[in-house]
Amino acid sequence: MKYVYLFNEGNKDMRSLLGGKGANLAEMINMGLPVPNGFTVTTEACNKYYKDNEVMSEDIKNEILVNLEKLEEITGKKIGDEENPLLLSVRSGAPVSMPGMMDTILNLGLNDKVAKAIASNEDNMRFIYDSYRRFIMMYADVVKGVNKDEFETILLNRKRAKGITSDLELTAEDMYELTIDFKKLYKKLVKSDFPEDITVQIIEAVTAVFRSWNNDRAKVYRNMNNISETLGTAVNIQEMVYGNLTNDSLTGVAFSRNPANGEDKLYGEFLEKAQGEDIVAGVRTPKSIEAMERDYPKIYQELKDISKLLEKHYKDMQDMEFTVEKGKLYMLQTRNGKRTSLAALNIAVSEVKEGLITKEEALMKVSPDDISSLLHSSFKKESLNKASVITKGLPASPGAASGKIYFDVQSVKKASEENIPAILVRKETSAEDIEGMQKAVGILTVNGGMTSHAAVVARGIGRCCISGCENLIVSEEEKYMQVGDKMYPEGTEISLDGMTGTVYEGVLEIAEASLTDNFKEFLSWAKEIKKLAVKANADTKKDALKALELGAEGLGLCRSEHMFFEKDKILAIRKMILAGSNEERDIALKELLPIQQKDFEDLFTVMDGKSVVIRYLDPPLHEFLPKTDIEMEELSKYLKISVSDLQTKIDKLKEINPMMGHRGCRLAVTYPSIIVMQTKAIINAALKCAKKGITVKPEMMVPLTISLNEFTYLKDIIDKTIKEIMVKDNISYKVGTMIEVPRSVIVANEIATKAEFFSFGTNDLTQMTLGISRDDASFLNDYYEKGILTEDPFKTIDQNGVGKLMIVASRLAKSVRPDIELGICGEHGGDAKSVKFCHKIGLDYVSCSPYRVPAAILAAAQAVIEGK
Amino acid sequence: MKYVYLFNEGNKDMRSLLGGKGANLAEMINMGLPVPNGFTVTTEACNKYYKDNEVMSEDIKNEILVNLEKLEEITGKKIGDEENPLLLSVRSGAPVSMPGMMDTILNLGLNDKVAKAIASNEDNMRFIYDSYRRFIMMYADVVKGVNKDEFETILLNRKRAKGITSDLELTAEDMYELTIDFKKLYKKLVKSDFPEDITVQIIEAVTAVFRSWNNDRAKVYRNMNNISETLGTAVNIQEMVYGNLTNDSLTGVAFSRNPANGEDKLYGEFLEKAQGEDIVAGVRTPKSIEAMERDYPKIYQELKDISKLLEKHYKDMQDMEFTVEKGKLYMLQTRNGKRTSLAALNIAVSEVKEGLITKEEALMKVSPDDISSLLHSSFKKESLNKASVITKGLPASPGAASGKIYFDVQSVKKASEENIPAILVRKETSAEDIEGMQKAVGILTVNGGMTSHAAVVARGIGRCCISGCENLIVSEEEKYMQVGDKMYPEGTEISLDGMTGTVYEGVLEIAEASLTDNFKEFLSWAKEIKKLAVKANADTKKDALKALELGAEGLGLCRSEHMFFEKDKILAIRKMILAGSNEERDIALKELLPIQQKDFEDLFTVMDGKSVVIRYLDPPLHEFLPKTDIEMEELSKYLKISVSDLQTKIDKLKEINPMMGHRGCRLAVTYPSIIVMQTKAIINAALKCAKKGITVKPEMMVPLTISLNEFTYLKDIIDKTIKEIMVKDNISYKVGTMIEVPRSVIVANEIATKAEFFSFGTNDLTQMTLGISRDDASFLNDYYEKGILTEDPFKTIDQNGVGKLMIVASRLAKSVRPDIELGICGEHGGDAKSVKFCHKIGLDYVSCSPYRVPAAILAAAQAVIEGK
Repeated sequence: MKYVYLFNEGNKDMRSLLGGKGANLAEMINMGLPVPNGFTVTTEACNKYYKDNEVMSEDIKNEILVNLEKLEEITGKKIGDEENPLLLSVRSGAPVSMPGMMDTILNLGLNDKVAKAIASNEDNMRFIYDSYRRFIMMYADVVKGVNKDEFETILLNRKRAKGITSDLELTAEDMYELTIDFKKLYKKLVKSDFPEDITVQIIEAVTAVFRSWNNDRAKVYRNMNNISETLGTAVNIQEMVYGNLTNDSLTGVAFSRNPANGEDKLYGEFLEKAQGEDIVAGVRTPKSIEAMERDYPKIYQELKDISKLLEKHYKDMQDMEFTVEKGKLYMLQTRNGKRTSLAALNIAVSEVKEGLITKEEALMKVSPDDISSLLHSSFKKESLNKASVITKGLPASPGAASGKIYFDVQSVKKASEENIPAILVRKETSAEDIEGMQKAVGILTVNGGMTSHAAVVARGIGRCCISGCENLIVSEEEKYMQVGDKMYPEGTEISLDGMTGTVYEGVLEIAEASLTDNFKEFLSWAKEIKKLAVKANADTKKDALKALELGAEGLGLCRSEHMFFEKDKILAIRKMILAGSNEERDIALKELLPIQQKDFEDLFTVMDGKSVVIRYLDPPLHEFLPKTDIEMEELSKYLKISVSDLQTKIDKLKEINPMMGHRGCRLAVTYPSIIVMQTKAIINAALKCAKKGITVKPEMMVPLTISLNEFTYLKDIIDKTIKEIMVKDNISYKVGTMIEVPRSVIVANEIATKAEFFSFGTNDLTQMTLGISRDDASFLNDYYEKGILTEDPFKTIDQNGVGKLMIVASRLAKSVRPDIELGICGEHGGDAKSVKFCHKIGLDYVSCSPYRVPAAILAAAQAVIEGK
Repeated sequence: MKYVYLFNEGNKDMRSLLGGKGANLAEMINMGLPVPNGFTVTTEACNKYYKDNEVMSEDIKNEILVNLEKLEEITGKKIGDEENPLLLSVRSGAPVSMPGMMDTILNLGLNDKVAKAIASNEDNMRFIYDSYRRFIMMYADVVKGVNKDEFETILLNRKRAKGITSDLELTAEDMYELTIDFKKLYKKLVKSDFPEDITVQIIEAVTAVFRSWNNDRAKVYRNMNNISETLGTAVNIQEMVYGNLTNDSLTGVAFSRNPANGEDKLYGEFLEKAQGEDIVAGVRTPKSIEAMERDYPKIYQELKDISKLLEKHYKDMQDMEFTVEKGKLYMLQTRNGKRTSLAALNIAVSEVKEGLITKEEALMKVSPDDISSLLHSSFKKESLNKASVITKGLPASPGAASGKIYFDVQSVKKASEENIPAILVRKETSAEDIEGMQKAVGILTVNGGMTSHAAVVARGIGRCCISGCENLIVSEEEKYMQVGDKMYPEGTEISLDGMTGTVYEGVLEIAEASLTDNFKEFLSWAKEIKKLAVKANADTKKDALKALELGAEGLGLCRSEHMFFEKDKILAIRKMILAGSNEERDIALKELLPIQQKDFEDLFTVMDGKSVVIRYLDPPLHEFLPKTDIEMEELSKYLKISVSDLQTKIDKLKEINPMMGHRGCRLAVTYPSIIVMQTKAIINAALKCAKKGITVKPEMMVPLTISLNEFTYLKDIIDKTIKEIMVKDNISYKVGTMIEVPRSVIVANEIATKAEFFSFGTNDLTQMTLGISRDDASFLNDYYEKGILTEDPFKTIDQNGVGKLMIVASRLAKSVRPDIELGICGEHGGDAKSVKFCHKIGLDYVSCSPYRVPAAILAAAQAVIEGK
């Protein structure tokens, strides 16, 4: 086993062994770029260190010392040498970037003898004792684990004594004396002398970096970012270069392109006479890279050339660190640069145009989340930096919104009529709030997760929403919200960042979204490659138009009941629900028929030539019923019954576990006239559209099916109803079902004998397969914290559970109907990982809310590329 | 295809072709018993009749006429003959008994010529014209479908005119004239003459019986009794014998043993000078069979001999019809007799002792439901006959109870202290009502199905319960219940029949249950044969003792939380639930530890040597919280916080779908200290008992597991806790899990790597697999009505859905742990069909409520026998 690699022995593909930094340093060395030389102790050495109970084995130590000798040879310098001493940095570098989480030691190789030798040139004296005293403090801190405070106090006292405030005003003598004081303090705290032996320094420093892999902040960071504990860190030992040595020394960071917008121009900043750490510390204000072009044109050109070379080599925008020592440029690090979504898109597109990468490579460089975020407005960074946070919730629907808060639909509507941007704040939303949600610029709820009613509806209509804001107290009656002791009455201005789930005080400045040409071109590439069809979940003409604009190839889910929530319709549906007899119900349904038919006509017209999957009435009936006193009175007048009789009727419909109650096709079994009315509305609308030359492809979908008997009972009613209206076979339609209850998976081969398509309703399927109500799932936070679960099963398909059921259902269905159409219409249809899973298991399409369509298209394309 | 069988061509095993009556008539003919001869038109002929659009095909007609000729040969009589005419009965007979649902025609073969010839002997004149006029009316009614009323009016008018009231007072002339009048009326109503041609009579009569298979009452009966529509009915054409011909003619019905208690003595009744119909009509009071022994000793002896012969032949108690014509005995029907549960048991046991049947045969002759019903009290029949029904609900827990109604636990307790039998009436019950349920003699609820809280608890404690009484209105505040307009205030006396679900007014007389020697002996035979272990679900010492008494071999489910519902414990658990911090929670748990430990000690002591499966805390925490104002105040004082703060805390715990919320092992993930406390209580109790020489076999069961990660997290805590208390390995224990969420089935092979046993929680597994909350499942009635579902999936395992998951989980588990212990502890564990299914798929045990244990033992034995 080889534990140490000279830089020239490695390359960029050895990231897991050498860490990201080490692999890239090796790569640059091999490219012939100016990189201070060195070697890397591998992650395997780190893992062995932990396996050996945190002791570094002799073979690793020996290998480090052997390579140190080789480095001396390569550099022509020697450790501890008075003529030409080798000074070193010791830096961590894990396979996955964990910026600032682990330790670093600089100026290693200094001791009294070396310092004195260098200081014999008086020009170097201040510099070398400054470096030495820093080294002592760093070593005490990182290697010996003592508190730095007393060192800082000594430094401070010296400055006070001299009446100065800046370190820069300290003289060479001050630095020398500080070094002596620091060494004394070191001895006092560590109970031994500071080591003169430089091999001791090196071995101890490497051990300290290994140890820092397991410090508390590193562990938390790994946990938060799902980084495996078993990776370990590598350690890079590299010749020091000093950006603070002379006046023609400097240090800086640069991106090969602008990371904010992707512009193809060197971007970054530098500090003259400084070390890299000084930029990070932010004590001095760095200069922009443009100043370098002016003041150091030669170095600028060299850096720019290297930057282009690296970009071409890595086929990606680079984030680089460099230092100039006495006019000579050294590259200290390069890696693929982080960037905004906008920059990611623009860079990918322009790199294709430059011939740097292929379209397929470009498609892999932008994440579906990036694509989604480009569809939504966001707060300007400057504005965010100044904003004060009220609280945080779940980022339920992206976008940015500022407005006044209101606690009921009426007030939101009134404000909206007066052109006041309104934010609807509710404990939770229900079907009745939809009008208010549409009129509001943003929605904030106390309860509910990422797939709560508020979240689902908000994403569907592209409205910014924060849900599950659990430390918010809302009084809808008294019209205020409260966090801690602070009250926010109706009309208070707040801002919602739907991308992060943060609620801010006051109004913030918004950057609007826009679909650029680059965006459209990029998506067109994805469309060419993908195999999965991407459809949208949309219930109204407006949503359908948005879906088409964003690239949807059809509607995979039209929730027929969503059409009912407008004012005049809801009264009719309530009348239907509360009907005392079949006759009363039929009268109410007769009133609903033309309304629903008109809605379908609008939808079919918009979707001309594309398939439209319509789900029959699904939610439990009580979801449609009034909740407030005002609504109760209104309904009681409309129905001409007393409020108390109305209440009794409503109470009868209450359920203990509504998610598993009288809903879905169970409603149609009890009240077949509902499914008859809906079928008539669909087919009448289709016939009317067909007459106008519109191509209509309705697919009628039965929700919550659990057995062939049940499906057959309903399909017979649907077929009979259609036969009665459709004299000629002039509309081609399909009748299929949702697969959303575990039992329907088990008997999928039976159901598929009659059902022409399956659509996986993975929201419900996840709830029932896991036995977790998404509305009551806040306990899952304990599961994430304790590492029992790593992903939200309501966001990303639980492949080991729900995913297996999807595979089983698909196989069973195809065994009896090989050409059955298979799709997914749950929230997962817009989640990139889940879309890729759907591709892998051979579904025909995914369907998601309109604003997720572009992300789903990209994910579907990536799935094809990844599968190659 | 042969459509007609002479009686001597058939036998008792041809029931599906010849119908029950036809097959048994054939059998008796072949045994040489005195049976009027005849032939049977098969059920296949009936089905062909329906397939041919209700037309009888020529080949069937021909076969009937050919066999009619054969019958003439056998009997030596001829149809239409003036010397020796053959008179016939035409009776339906389906493969499954449908008493009184289809049509019968008697005296067929009479016409003017035959009647006149017979009437030439003056002794016969009254008899023959009485028969003829009845035949005309019956034919008009059954074959021609005309209303009988006008015929009855003619008869009535004649009696009025003569000033008499009884048919018996009509003379031979009256009968003759009535015949003429009936024929006239027939012509008027049917618009054609009454057929003189006897072959026409026969063909039309057979057709009419076929037609009656599909009359409304037959269809309803089949639907109610789950009888397939495709069976069809056979038709028996048989020589008439007349019990009303002479003074030494009679007719009767008899059982070979007493159907009420099984006593081995001929049992029945007869009427002299009468036809079978007269017994059914109930106009005259029949004599008991004892009178026959006295008055007709020869005939009695012959009947008794035949009865014993038949019993031996059929190896079962027989229900026979017979007629004596002119002193000669004819058997008209025999079939296995219906009997009470008590009789079933006693007959089975005594038949074994008589050497008539084997033990295995005996075990197949008593149903598990019979066995269950013997464990419970019932109302005496006389008392029931006079009782008036208030309403009907679901027969949630068997037994009979009369008492005064109360609407809250306090009042029930008070009444019980005063020795007033109390019936607890609630909208639904919850955990808090348990004390009241124990003190009550019966429980009545408006909501909830067969597996609601009320039902489950009532069955567990052997209390009579009727649930799901949906047209009952209950006001717990104003203390009354109401059905329709009728009010029943607190203290009203009512009676509950838990076997039928019927609620009666007033107090009824009760027959107590008793475990007879026969019962015990019978069960011991079942125990010898069965393979499945039968354990009980019991939570207290008292329940455990009852379980042992009834034959349980261990406890398959001890719901550890049920121990908490007693007064002093519930306050401690509430304190634990509402704890504001981990410290507060730990204090509350420390209080609970000794209480719970003591409960386990009691349980282990009772169950010495037998395994005890203990389920960790399972229900959502809000189930433990107070619901009434009084309880709220009490708790607020106890916890020293205000009622409104308490309310806020309680509201926080409310869930939208509690069945899929924060419950089961999810509680332990959030609050590991709960599982630590419970583990300590179990192991401490086990150690203490072991010291006393008691053999303890605790099996700790994690509920609601959905993944290996989750199970591992908890098992590690359990193991660590045990390691801390148990220094030596002196208790052997197991740690396993419930399989009750669909996901746990899918990953059963993963979970089984760590879990030592699985117990199928089929209540929850059914709920989640079908997506049906048992509390909200009343819509299933529509499914039964429409034939979509035939069985309640919460009563009998849904083998095609849930059952398949059980098979999958068993296989996956055994693939990684071949010796894994598999059981079931859902309500289905006490359902005979489900027990048999568990045997078939290779489970190790079933566990059910104590009172279901004997039925489960019998079902387990029957499963073995059926599998042979």
